[in-house]
Amino acid sequence: MNKKADIGLIGLAVMGENLVLNMESKGYTVAVFNRTVDKVDAFVNGRGKGKNFIGAHSLQELVESLERPRKVMMLVKAGKPVDDFIEQLIPLLEPGDIIIDGGNSHFPDTIRRTKYVESKGLLYIGTGVSGGEEGALKGPSMMPGGSPEAWPHVKEIFQAVAAKVDGGVPCCDWVGENGAGHFVKMVHNGIEYGDMQIINEAYHLMKELLGMDAFEQHEVFKRWNSGVLDSYLIEITTDIMAYKDEDGSPLVEKILDTAGQKGTGKWTAVTALDLGIPLTLIGESVFSRCLSAQKDLRVKASEVISGKKSGFKGDKQQFVNDLEKALYGAKIISYAQGYDLMMEAAKEYDWNLNYGGIALMWRGGCIIRSRFLGDIKKAFDNNPLLENLLLDDFFKGAVLSAEESWRRVCATALQNGIPVPALTSALCYFDGFRSARLPANLLQAQRDYFGAHQYERVDKARGEFFHTDWTGRGGNTASTTYDV
Amino acid sequence: MNKKADIGLIGLAVMGENLVLNMESKGYTVAVFNRTVDKVDAFVNGRGKGKNFIGAHSLQELVESLERPRKVMMLVKAGKPVDDFIEQLIPLLEPGDIIIDGGNSHFPDTIRRTKYVESKGLLYIGTGVSGGEEGALKGPSMMPGGSPEAWPHVKEIFQAVAAKVDGGVPCCDWVGENGAGHFVKMVHNGIEYGDMQIINEAYHLMKELLGMDAFEQHEVFKRWNSGVLDSYLIEITTDIMAYKDEDGSPLVEKILDTAGQKGTGKWTAVTALDLGIPLTLIGESVFSRCLSAQKDLRVKASEVISGKKSGFKGDKQQFVNDLEKALYGAKIISYAQGYDLMMEAAKEYDWNLNYGGIALMWRGGCIIRSRFLGDIKKAFDNNPLLENLLLDDFFKGAVLSAEESWRRVCATALQNGIPVPALTSALCYFDGFRSARLPANLLQAQRDYFGAHQYERVDKARGEFFHTDWTGRGGNTASTTYDV
Repeated sequence: MNKKADIGLIGLAVMGENLVLNMESKGYTVAVFNRTVDKVDAFVNGRGKGKNFIGAHSLQELVESLERPRKVMMLVKAGKPVDDFIEQLIPLLEPGDIIIDGGNSHFPDTIRRTKYVESKGLLYIGTGVSGGEEGALKGPSMMPGGSPEAWPHVKEIFQAVAAKVDGGVPCCDWVGENGAGHFVKMVHNGIEYGDMQIINEAYHLMKELLGMDAFEQHEVFKRWNSGVLDSYLIEITTDIMAYKDEDGSPLVEKILDTAGQKGTGKWTAVTALDLGIPLTLIGESVFSRCLSAQKDLRVKASEVISGKKSGFKGDKQQFVNDLEKALYGAKIISYAQGYDLMMEAAKEYDWNLNYGGIALMWRGGCIIRSRFLGDIKKAFDNNPLLENLLLDDFFKGAVLSAEESWRRVCATALQNGIPVPALTSALCYFDGFRSARLPANLLQAQRDYFGAHQYERVDKARGEFFHTDWTGRGGNTASTTYDV
Repeated sequence: MNKKADIGLIGLAVMGENLVLNMESKGYTVAVFNRTVDKVDAFVNGRGKGKNFIGAHSLQELVESLERPRKVMMLVKAGKPVDDFIEQLIPLLEPGDIIIDGGNSHFPDTIRRTKYVESKGLLYIGTGVSGGEEGALKGPSMMPGGSPEAWPHVKEIFQAVAAKVDGGVPCCDWVGENGAGHFVKMVHNGIEYGDMQIINEAYHLMKELLGMDAFEQHEVFKRWNSGVLDSYLIEITTDIMAYKDEDGSPLVEKILDTAGQKGTGKWTAVTALDLGIPLTLIGESVFSRCLSAQKDLRVKASEVISGKKSGFKGDKQQFVNDLEKALYGAKIISYAQGYDLMMEAAKEYDWNLNYGGIALMWRGGCIIRSRFLGDIKKAFDNNPLLENLLLDDFFKGAVLSAEESWRRVCATALQNGIPVPALTSALCYFDGFRSARLPANLLQAQRDYFGAHQYERVDKARGEFFHTDWTGRGGNTASTTYDV
């Protein structure tokens, strides 16, 4: 065991195994350790046989086998196991060594751990790794954040294993300080919820309103996948629509319509609420999963609440064309909202986020990969200080070109009793976003009426607050100025 | 100082002063204490002069002045002050004495505190108090939860001071165990967000789509207040619409259209996400406030994104009539969602919630008070085990009678570029709720495709999970059964 390893990995589940096989295939020597130590030899003599792996039977051995500065990556269950390994690693490491968490940690934990590990003279990276087990092996999307000084030491190896787009550009770049990497991974997952939901709504409309079966829809999704919606999720939907069950009918129709939500989609919506950012499309997507899970109640309701039956009388082909534009419009809104959330988080947590780089990282290797993300990258290349995606000329034009179709789709769905919460929520957001004036002046009047909460005026400077005794019914009682 | 006091109060801010004046006016003797002790004498010799108050200059004095079992109510800032006073009170109290928190505590804190205080042999109540300063004086809505054994000791005094409806029925009843009272107060505030938002959307539509000024809208809201929408919030909106600024124009139009959200509305939405309940109308209402707060960005966007201009060509009066029904339909959904959240919380936290009683508590004294809540009370009187408000015959009929109007309003708004996120979100929920089949089967297929997450089948028992190798393009690869 003469040659030292370039990086060490803790956690030989399938994800970990695949990631180190990927690293090794790029020319790196990897030391591996697992809490259940049998797993180490099983791997080194199994999938790792004849390759440049060093099996370590203790953390001490793992650390001793590494080149300095040491890079120790954990791919273990989020939560306590991460903290436990950090505690065990700290006394074994030396100043400048790097601890890396590649698991699904929640970003506030990563913020805390970065500060803690740095306080011990070490460096820390929390990196989102997207693409599942297959991605880990063939090229994941990687979103590293943490101690900026650590990045130059892991950049080469991370970018070597990451997915590539455009003939070699790696889907991995530095995201930002402390928890930024895991934050961006969380937003990625929230956006994934939204992308899936709008595809679900399109499927529902084509099925219930237009009466199209899955095989007909296969042709539609296939066509869409060569247009503006070109993406992994449209591609797999194309496959799914064509997939036949043993009896020759579309398998998708045999699947139970209940979806879980307990994970990062929910975290994204909660974080948006905490930061005060209107992340409506993802919010509705999470809630739609919740409603889908209430299957028994829905079945019961469907038996007693008749309500509107759909009855489409228009041009089917025209509606399908409109639908493509509706999805495109809603998708633009969803990403605009997701970027708005990242920008607010950057302010809140003092991160220097790499917005174009984030789009690039998502272009390959992960579930939301798409052509679309290349356009987002371009928007931030054109203007790194872009305040909102909708203010970029390309996206502004795109959304306006989709607008009329999108309105027709939503109005038709509502008139025909087909639920399209994400498509309509996004459209309402678009109409609110482009409104200089929203009705919240009435809301402020109401709050001042019942709670003396005070309000600002359009004809006075911001920061000057007023209260009115509203019960003077129609009289001319002057409003009173408060110093606050 | 011979007579002992019936109850003690800590915290003589306006809210506390008003509540004890209310108690005293009902014949109770109240001992009062304040951290800044000067305030005690100022109150007893000021607003409390000649009345049955006992001024206490220490917690010790306060406790000694109380009849047993002692009832000590805190009306102090939520958070650490509550915990601090609990710590100070515990050694002064005796078994069976009752600590009451009447502030705006978050329900998980109240769950924790109830357990802690009970572990010390004492009883605890956390009570929502709604109605603001005026309500505290004249009759608030009170929502007490905590140690059930404490309720008989405070019932008389709480119900004496509470608002009354129907010629004497108090808007105060036992809510449930530990944090249930503060939970229900939180949901009340979330529902308040929703009620305000749909009124805002109606105002926006009448103004932007129909071109009606505030004085014309005053007449509409006045009429609505004698129909199914009869409520405090419609009543104050009627007043607001009539209120003239010094120049004779409607004051509401001079108010800045930015609203804050950092409080209980947000907590309600976050709790719904945590519990997996589709609380879409309130969620959209919170997000609408967030978007209203992005005023500078909206102004900028309005200058560069032209988009749809509204151009209404229908019958104005008919649309206003439709609008009333749209608000009614959306309001029913909002309360159905709020009750759904409470029912799930009751399961999660093991509360025996008093659903009819909750509607009764909200009927008077608080911001969301309305005739409507009487109908909710009736629904639970008719069936205390009602699973969802929409399954009650009255509400089912009501929502179906509103349906067509509501669809017209939403479709017209979307076609004309006026944002109505809460009205449409509620309608989409209604259409989802009454759907035995939602498109989440596709979602499950997608998750199984990219992450091998498995799915259930409509033709197999629940709990049996399947995985398919979807990339077999259109082939007949059999799905595999997994034991999980």
